[in-house]
Amino acid sequence: MAESPRRAAGRRLLLPLLCLFFQGATAILFAVFVRYNHETDAALWHWGNHSNAANEFYFRYPSFQDVHVMIFVGFGFLMAFLQRYGFSSVGFTFFLAAFALQWSTLIQGFLHAFHGGHIHVGVESMINADFCAGAVLISFGAILGKTGPAQLLLMALLEVVLFGVNEFVLLSLLGVRDAGGSMTIHTFGAYFGLVLSRVLYRPRLEKSKHRQGSVYHSDLFAMIGTIFLWIFWPSFNSAPTSLGDGQHRTALNTYYSLTASTLSTFALSALVSRDGRLDMVHIQNAALAGGVVVGTSSEMMLTPFGALAAGFLAGTVSTLGYKFFTPILESKFKVQDTCGVHNLHGMPGILGALLGVLVAGLATHEAYGDGLENVFPLIAEGQRSATSQAMHQLFGLFVTLMFASVGGGLGGLLLKLPCLDYPSDSQCYEDQVYWEAPGAAPLPLPSPPAFQVPGEHEDTAQEPLRVEEPDTQA
Amino acid sequence: MAESPRRAAGRRLLLPLLCLFFQGATAILFAVFVRYNHETDAALWHWGNHSNAANEFYFRYPSFQDVHVMIFVGFGFLMAFLQRYGFSSVGFTFFLAAFALQWSTLIQGFLHAFHGGHIHVGVESMINADFCAGAVLISFGAILGKTGPAQLLLMALLEVVLFGVNEFVLLSLLGVRDAGGSMTIHTFGAYFGLVLSRVLYRPRLEKSKHRQGSVYHSDLFAMIGTIFLWIFWPSFNSAPTSLGDGQHRTALNTYYSLTASTLSTFALSALVSRDGRLDMVHIQNAALAGGVVVGTSSEMMLTPFGALAAGFLAGTVSTLGYKFFTPILESKFKVQDTCGVHNLHGMPGILGALLGVLVAGLATHEAYGDGLENVFPLIAEGQRSATSQAMHQLFGLFVTLMFASVGGGLGGLLLKLPCLDYPSDSQCYEDQVYWEAPGAAPLPLPSPPAFQVPGEHEDTAQEPLRVEEPDTQA
Amino acid sequence: MAESPRRAAGRRLLLPLLCLFFQGATAILFAVFVRYNHETDAALWHWGNHSNAANEFYFRYPSFQDVHVMIFVGFGFLMAFLQRYGFSSVGFTFFLAAFALQWSTLIQGFLHAFHGGHIHVGVESMINADFCAGAVLISFGAILGKTGPAQLLLMALLEVVLFGVNEFVLLSLLGVRDAGGSMTIHTFGAYFGLVLSRVLYRPRLEKSKHRQGSVYHSDLFAMIGTIFLWIFWPSFNSAPTSLGDGQHRTALNTYYSLTASTLSTFALSALVSRDGRLDMVHIQNAALAGGVVVGTSSEMMLTPFGALAAGFLAGTVSTLGYKFFTPILESKFKVQDTCGVHNLHGMPGILGALLGVLVAGLATHEAYGDGLENVFPLIAEGQRSATSQAMHQLFGLFVTLMFASVGGGLGGLLLKLPCLDYPSDSQCYEDQVYWEAPGAAPLPLPSPPAFQVPGEHEDTAQEPLRVEEPDTQA
Repeated sequence: MAESPRRAAGRRLLLPLLCLFFQGATAILFAVFVRYNHETDAALWHWGNHSNAANEFYFRYPSFQDVHVMIFVGFGFLMAFLQRYGFSSVGFTFFLAAFALQWSTLIQGFLHAFHGGHIHVGVESMINADFCAGAVLISFGAILGKTGPAQLLLMALLEVVLFGVNEFVLLSLLGVRDAGGSMTIHTFGAYFGLVLSRVLYRPRLEKSKHRQGSVYHSDLFAMIGTIFLWIFWPSFNSAPTSLGDGQHRTALNTYYSLTASTLSTFALSALVSRDGRLDMVHIQNAALAGGVVVGTSSEMMLTPFGALAAGFLAGTVSTLGYKFFTPILESKFKVQDTCGVHNLHGMPGILGALLGVLVAGLATHEAYGDGLENVFPLIAEGQRSATSQAMHQLFGLFVTLMFASVGGGLGGLLLKLPCLDYPSDSQCYEDQVYWEAPGAAPLPLPSPPAFQVPGEHEDTAQEPLRVEEPDTQA
Repeated sequence: MAESPRRAAGRRLLLPLLCLFFQGATAILFAVFVRYNHETDAALWHWGNHSNAANEFYFRYPSFQDVHVMIFVGFGFLMAFLQRYGFSSVGFTFFLAAFALQWSTLIQGFLHAFHGGHIHVGVESMINADFCAGAVLISFGAILGKTGPAQLLLMALLEVVLFGVNEFVLLSLLGVRDAGGSMTIHTFGAYFGLVLSRVLYRPRLEKSKHRQGSVYHSDLFAMIGTIFLWIFWPSFNSAPTSLGDGQHRTALNTYYSLTASTLSTFALSALVSRDGRLDMVHIQNAALAGGVVVGTSSEMMLTPFGALAAGFLAGTVSTLGYKFFTPILESKFKVQDTCGVHNLHGMPGILGALLGVLVAGLATHEAYGDGLENVFPLIAEGQRSATSQAMHQLFGLFVTLMFASVGGGLGGLLLKLPCLDYPSDSQCYEDQVYWEAPGAAPLPLPSPPAFQVPGEHEDTAQEPLRVEEPDTQA
Repeated sequence: MAESPRRAAGRRLLLPLLCLFFQGATAILFAVFVRYNHETDAALWHWGNHSNAANEFYFRYPSFQDVHVMIFVGFGFLMAFLQRYGFSSVGFTFFLAAFALQWSTLIQGFLHAFHGGHIHVGVESMINADFCAGAVLISFGAILGKTGPAQLLLMALLEVVLFGVNEFVLLSLLGVRDAGGSMTIHTFGAYFGLVLSRVLYRPRLEKSKHRQGSVYHSDLFAMIGTIFLWIFWPSFNSAPTSLGDGQHRTALNTYYSLTASTLSTFALSALVSRDGRLDMVHIQNAALAGGVVVGTSSEMMLTPFGALAAGFLAGTVSTLGYKFFTPILESKFKVQDTCGVHNLHGMPGILGALLGVLVAGLATHEAYGDGLENVFPLIAEGQRSATSQAMHQLFGLFVTLMFASVGGGLGGLLLKLPCLDYPSDSQCYEDQVYWEAPGAAPLPLPSPPAFQVPGEHEDTAQEPLRVEEPDTQA
């Protein structure tokens, strides 16, 4: 039974009202709690006798900007592969991430940078907020095309909180190392989204099947996302690591790992196809698994060979996942994973966590020298053995999976609230549900214009436009 | 009465001739006046006993590169939203900005960096020239689709000079603070372009109405521009500010302001539509207003809350402007503003100037400590009170509006010179007037190729290509 | 005579097998030889008493990231101008460059950074490997559309080795200066590719002529490549130069040169066309020649005027090359140069080498002061006169041309190995040969959806989707 247009229109009002309410609430919380830290505040910075060159800004801001590109261009365009969902992919990424940046500045601030009643912000809080937005966008990838923007906003509201708590438990309570977020970002974001997608399972989604593929140019738009993610991933993993050798080594390891995942993805994509042809879905996604898999370990003494091996493995597992596991995930586990986040973030995230367990367990004073303090402070201070650190890392993975699963379940229930608008089974993957979308093809070309007299008489001189483009009419 | 093709072809010759003449002239002026500054000259740099790490390059070049992306990718693709004007949007942006960089290096150099008979250049002159190019591109946005490249070149010739003079009056004579250019760039560029568009008013522009909208993929290209502008705006505002806390705080404030303008744009866009659907024009443009509105004040102690509030307001005003004011601007004021620069740069620029008045007026020694010297040197040196600085800021806005209006008027007269070529009323928003433009659709897909013997016999083995793509033919 | 599908499918297997074999081989070589250098190794970095701010990472990583964007986004999308070859252009760029990064880390490492039995890696090896990948991609541009991925992989295997040897001869043995690679990258890559293309000459390539042009949106994708290359070229040339004034001056010179090549390209493109209209091929390519032509000399005291003049000349030569020389190259010299790399990299590369000869020959102690040590160490140490340096530079160009020609010839023979798969004459410039390529057009738009009751009854409420898009059907 169809509801009245009035009631439906009322439901559409929920998005702007939620936006305005949340923006008002975060603004008030910002007014009460958020302050410049000692490197952004004019008085505090000039209080000490600092050299301007020592400001954290110069060590982290270029990496921050690279991360920022990944979040907004990378995720946004990567998800624009669907033929009729580019506006939503890029637009909702923009919207969700903008909200998540504000909200996670507060949540992470309360948990990590709350001193004297205030949250202190600077370039590190900008990086951390972008990381949290990354996790939200990974979850978005699992439910892409099947949710409305008000639902997504509520998902972000919940996920940012749980992301912050999980990150706090791992990094602050358990002393787990996870600079590039194999666990806190990729594993958490993927399983949160997958469980949420399970709760929102649509048995009749095949009604929108015809819109679930790409078209030629939408695949090229998606490659913009892929390539920017790939290029800047070394900055992603190294953005929060310790200065000096820490950032340098992290970037280098990630760079090697990504080259290897790219080669294994091309190899496997050709191998598993009927006729040796490459599949854009694999190239767009699995080639990035090398960045995910070294998220935990790239700041460690992974060695360049270790980075290659890890990347190779991740690209292989991810490609095989797209080919063989995604169909099973839907048919057996009733998880409809639009972007295959299980293959790009889920499995490689878990592999990355396990690789972190391994590399942490192998840490020695000899290999790290005085740098051990930066990478494994608890081992350097004698509070933990390498084996104990490895066990804590492993426990961190289980904690993350638990938070993600419970959170995704709660999120699914939240998104089922009857007041929320979402597309029907036959309207999935369609921009026009939430956007004023123009048609696909431009006007046919006019004939090349004859030279004209500009000025008053031009219109009499103007010949009617003629269609002269047989290609597009064929 | 149509002119002869010969005379018209002659008019087309004007563009290359102007280009060659201007390039020759700037080259001669460069030869006579432009010299490396003490940080780019091999002998001068090594004369002093500098640490290489102290070279300004390392403090400003990453930000410069971000600004460079905004000017060429950001503006270029943002204006590519029109269905048949992508070549011109991206191409003329490229062309105009390249010219403006050279020309404004000279103009700004004469006004700001002329010592001992020479202009001294380095990374700061690169940033300043890019900023001037930004103002030219804002004006271009107002007349997009209705002008020829020779007209645009003359516009840039004039506008760069007036931009430089206005900037000199504000920054050097009045002691106004405007790091991110709410006044000098956005307000100036917008009103210059709007007045110019008024002078070039075309009463019969509806003859090109059918080309004035977007198509699906052109909107996605425009989003490339939007997102890169959004991402790098913190670098834009912070590129010229003082080192240390200055750049850090400016970037942080801009980042917050942009998140708020994004949320308010999504909220308002859904609110003002008939059925709750979002409008790409708003998302592509109004979401950026948060960067414009803190152009003046983001280097000041705006506070994170202040940044959110300013961004929220700017996104709201800008979206409402697109919805309600743009139609009035055309019907009542006879200003045809193709990209809505009044909504994105004009009103938010004025708001940003007023916000600067407010924040400057509230400046205290307590809030800025010893950092006051960097942000408000005249207050720190006791030459001015905060209130006096605020009054100077306000006066700077009026000066800018005056320079922009008079300049735009002069520009309009200049562009009406009868020797200049421009599209007729029915040829507006059409690439083919100035570009060799190919058709819109690729060839239909061939059937998947059968495996072939490479080598001499391949052609006998080759089956004719068959069309096998029912989707595109439907 | 057609071969059996089984034999053909076997040939398709070669790509994944080669990938896996090469990845295995480089991984083993990495395990044996590649080690972190003293700035990336935790123990080595903390052994010395360094300030973290002194880590090379902070001086070169932002430039490296810009170079990385140029290699993967710049080259990839620039070559996506063909209407049906975007997947291959972007995808094979991704694939080839990923392989080249690993392989050239080894080759360049053995030649330049082999100490104590190990190759030591850090941000400089990352930059150098990206540069080598650039040369491979230039060669790829000459044969774009006419080769299979296994052929390309073998080309890269050979070219990386010869690139490394040529670079070693020039920089280490001859003491040639070539920071931005006018010789080692552009001239080498271009003539390697052109000779290779000559060996693979296809007399019946006109069978694929209909696919050799662009379509409207493919030209816009190509402009993404162009603009990112243009923006970041200052970082490309300055990435490996000496710190301080060296990087600063190099970036500044490149920036000026590019503005001039852009203006001369627009001028010449309009001049040489029948009716004054601009040609996208020129704008996409020749406008970049200003970056190539100062590759050698931008670190020298070229002067801003010198940079403008060089850029102007390069843009002019390159545009005229596209217009007049490319057809001759095919008809007389039987070189089918898909992307016109002779015009963008070949001629401007040679011009750049000659400009380097000139500027080196003019070097004086007075002009460079104590900075002479950084730019021309052999002159500063009294081992060489400026004239002698100039002669060495000139000899370097001849060596490069010789290596490139012999290498390209060898490469051509290698790529003719009968076991390698390649497209037939009528299948060139077609993605579907190696990719699962979807159709070009999205589904027609449905009518705007009526508001719906979400939930169980939605499907009865759902109206059938109607086509309502008269524009695209006209």
